[in-house]
Amino acid sequence: MKSLFAVKGNIIFTKELGKFEVCEKGYIVVEDDEIVGVFSELDEKYKDIEVIDYGDNLLIPGFVDLHVHAPQYPNIGLGLDKELMPWLETYTFPEEAKYKDLCYAEKVYSRFVHDLWKNGTTRAVVFGTIHKEATKRLMDLFAEAGLGAYVGKVNMDRNSPEFLCEETEQSINDTLEIVKEYGNKYELVKPIITPRFVPSCTPELMEALGKIAKEYQVPVQSHLSENFGEICFVKELHPDAPFYGSIYDKYGLFGDTPTIMAHCVLCSEDEVNLLVEKGVFIAHNPNSNCNLASGIAPIRRLLSRGIPIGLGSDVSGGHTLSMANACVIASQVSNIKWIQSDRIDKPLSTADSFYLATKGGGAFFGKVGSFEPGYKFDCLVIDDSCLPHFKPLTIVERLQKFLYTGDDRNIKARYVNGKLVTEPKIIV
Amino acid sequence: MKSLFAVKGNIIFTKELGKFEVCEKGYIVVEDDEIVGVFSELDEKYKDIEVIDYGDNLLIPGFVDLHVHAPQYPNIGLGLDKELMPWLETYTFPEEAKYKDLCYAEKVYSRFVHDLWKNGTTRAVVFGTIHKEATKRLMDLFAEAGLGAYVGKVNMDRNSPEFLCEETEQSINDTLEIVKEYGNKYELVKPIITPRFVPSCTPELMEALGKIAKEYQVPVQSHLSENFGEICFVKELHPDAPFYGSIYDKYGLFGDTPTIMAHCVLCSEDEVNLLVEKGVFIAHNPNSNCNLASGIAPIRRLLSRGIPIGLGSDVSGGHTLSMANACVIASQVSNIKWIQSDRIDKPLSTADSFYLATKGGGAFFGKVGSFEPGYKFDCLVIDDSCLPHFKPLTIVERLQKFLYTGDDRNIKARYVNGKLVTEPKIIV
Repeated sequence: MKSLFAVKGNIIFTKELGKFEVCEKGYIVVEDDEIVGVFSELDEKYKDIEVIDYGDNLLIPGFVDLHVHAPQYPNIGLGLDKELMPWLETYTFPEEAKYKDLCYAEKVYSRFVHDLWKNGTTRAVVFGTIHKEATKRLMDLFAEAGLGAYVGKVNMDRNSPEFLCEETEQSINDTLEIVKEYGNKYELVKPIITPRFVPSCTPELMEALGKIAKEYQVPVQSHLSENFGEICFVKELHPDAPFYGSIYDKYGLFGDTPTIMAHCVLCSEDEVNLLVEKGVFIAHNPNSNCNLASGIAPIRRLLSRGIPIGLGSDVSGGHTLSMANACVIASQVSNIKWIQSDRIDKPLSTADSFYLATKGGGAFFGKVGSFEPGYKFDCLVIDDSCLPHFKPLTIVERLQKFLYTGDDRNIKARYVNGKLVTEPKIIV
Repeated sequence: MKSLFAVKGNIIFTKELGKFEVCEKGYIVVEDDEIVGVFSELDEKYKDIEVIDYGDNLLIPGFVDLHVHAPQYPNIGLGLDKELMPWLETYTFPEEAKYKDLCYAEKVYSRFVHDLWKNGTTRAVVFGTIHKEATKRLMDLFAEAGLGAYVGKVNMDRNSPEFLCEETEQSINDTLEIVKEYGNKYELVKPIITPRFVPSCTPELMEALGKIAKEYQVPVQSHLSENFGEICFVKELHPDAPFYGSIYDKYGLFGDTPTIMAHCVLCSEDEVNLLVEKGVFIAHNPNSNCNLASGIAPIRRLLSRGIPIGLGSDVSGGHTLSMANACVIASQVSNIKWIQSDRIDKPLSTADSFYLATKGGGAFFGKVGSFEPGYKFDCLVIDDSCLPHFKPLTIVERLQKFLYTGDDRNIKARYVNGKLVTEPKIIV
């Protein structure tokens, strides 16, 4: 028998970029995991269903974090005084090496999943480390928590410190094992092929990963054109490649299955054209791009080309898991980009940034990130009553105030895929 | 009889730009309101004084907010989709008009002072509105709370909406009344001459304000070269002035008494030279400058000229009172400035930003913002034990983690001028 219920509150979401849909004191009717519709009054036929009344609270779609590194969580807020390549060497790689210790991994990962939950992230696309067992454990923890995730065992078999470099064959075999074992293990948690980035993957490895992606129809994530030094290094390694992204493409890792490329701060015109052609998603990580001095990605221009885009926290290049904060900084840097483009690349409004943080990134998961009929019911209940209010505010203004000035204290409940998700356990 | 006591904890502060001073499990000895010194062991002569032991907590100087608009607090997080001039017209002026109602003013201002306290701001330089009584009440509230502040009754007698425009004489008289009545009323709360900015002040008004500043030796604050549209408007109004700042200078409002100019995003070389010559402080407001699409102030270049600089929240152009957040965004935008200046304008490290948020801005108050001998004892006790920790961190790293990932929940106690300051009352 199907479950049928409704939640009631001040509903706000985005169907399209830049435009809020609002239904004050309305109902979201949910059947099992899916939304039937948003209604200002409940139809007669729903008169007997359970209604969970959240009073004057806001109901918004759960946040989607399209790019985050779980093993870098211990480094959050630390070491943000270097550019990408030295940052990786100094802070990131030594930390990631620790995840061969499953006990350490479990401790960090359970807190990481907990803190995603705390911040209202209901779906995430996640980098693990090279370590097979730790990555499996991370997937289990997501499933136990009831959150949605794509989780990738990272592949790296060159230009990496000895303590964090794989044998090519081992890297392939471990990936294959996870894909087979976890491909259908969970409904909401799935593996994703995760070559770290071109500099750390041999052509042999990339070729094999492309084949696995194709054979098992697994999605792909990696990094692209984040930083000047990185791009120079890729050019040195692959002098004949016309541009960075073409190397992933050569090996079937650029949109042959659903693909996310993180950053895209410095893409050439040809690279943008290929992103468009192959329908590749971009994960925009403005906090990280500022912290690591990468620059400001031209998001308005990329959006105008029809590229699907979501926001990422990119912890620990980014310093917070809060996707509300990601909305704020996305709008902030877009304002700077706007004046620096002689007012051509229009700023991202709150409705734009919020769209990216919900439906924009959610599209990678299917029908996720909106309250339209047929969408998975991922929802946050926002209690903004303790934020300073001195005058009547519209629902849009209340959302804006929450995004700019609220925090996890304002998130009163989280639903994922139709289910209320309670606080996940932290393993200490 | 003098009071003599010590606080014990992990002490961290900046004596100079870019360099942390650290004393683990050390003592700050305080006599009345002033710091005697920081010691790793207590000398025999202090063996009988009271020691307040904060265990493993961090002890840092209180934050100084060098630029904030108290009456804009109800707009915090709202309406950040416009540039300066239309933003003022649409959101700011209508809100500021409400402060003729003392009851409304009291409600907002008491919450504002409370929330400064909550966020660890121990000293602030504040804009009020044109309203004399509301501004006096704001000063009283600061004094009652035990926080340090310069508070300005705003002057505006042209190019302002009718409901927020003063008669020149009234504006002068009201200012004079406050200066006389409040000049010596409180130790920690003082008036400051506050012409809103050139566009909203007639030459007659500016001239009179400059005379009051000089006669009563009152400091001055205003806005300077924030935004392209604003600068164009100033040029229209004063076609003969060589540059924006020269107009303030002409009327004795540019460093003849201690002066803060907010923003300075777009200063010309001549304007910078005059800032240097007159020893004018700059309040750097990176959140506001991003939110209102003003740009990135060239802080490294301005620092290299020896200009005294502090950070401001600029609520509600800025969306948060948190000066920790101001440190983060100051470093972030400086990273962007760095790459956009072909790596000439060095980024602001955490130690740089922290200096600006404490001793940099504190210098406007005298010996404030550091733990050096003779400084006023303004101190925050930071309990970071609930932030996720997975490895031993240095004191510097713990501060960094607090600044980037912590919030008001981590501030356990606040001292101002030698006194523990408890939670201020909110008037509802």
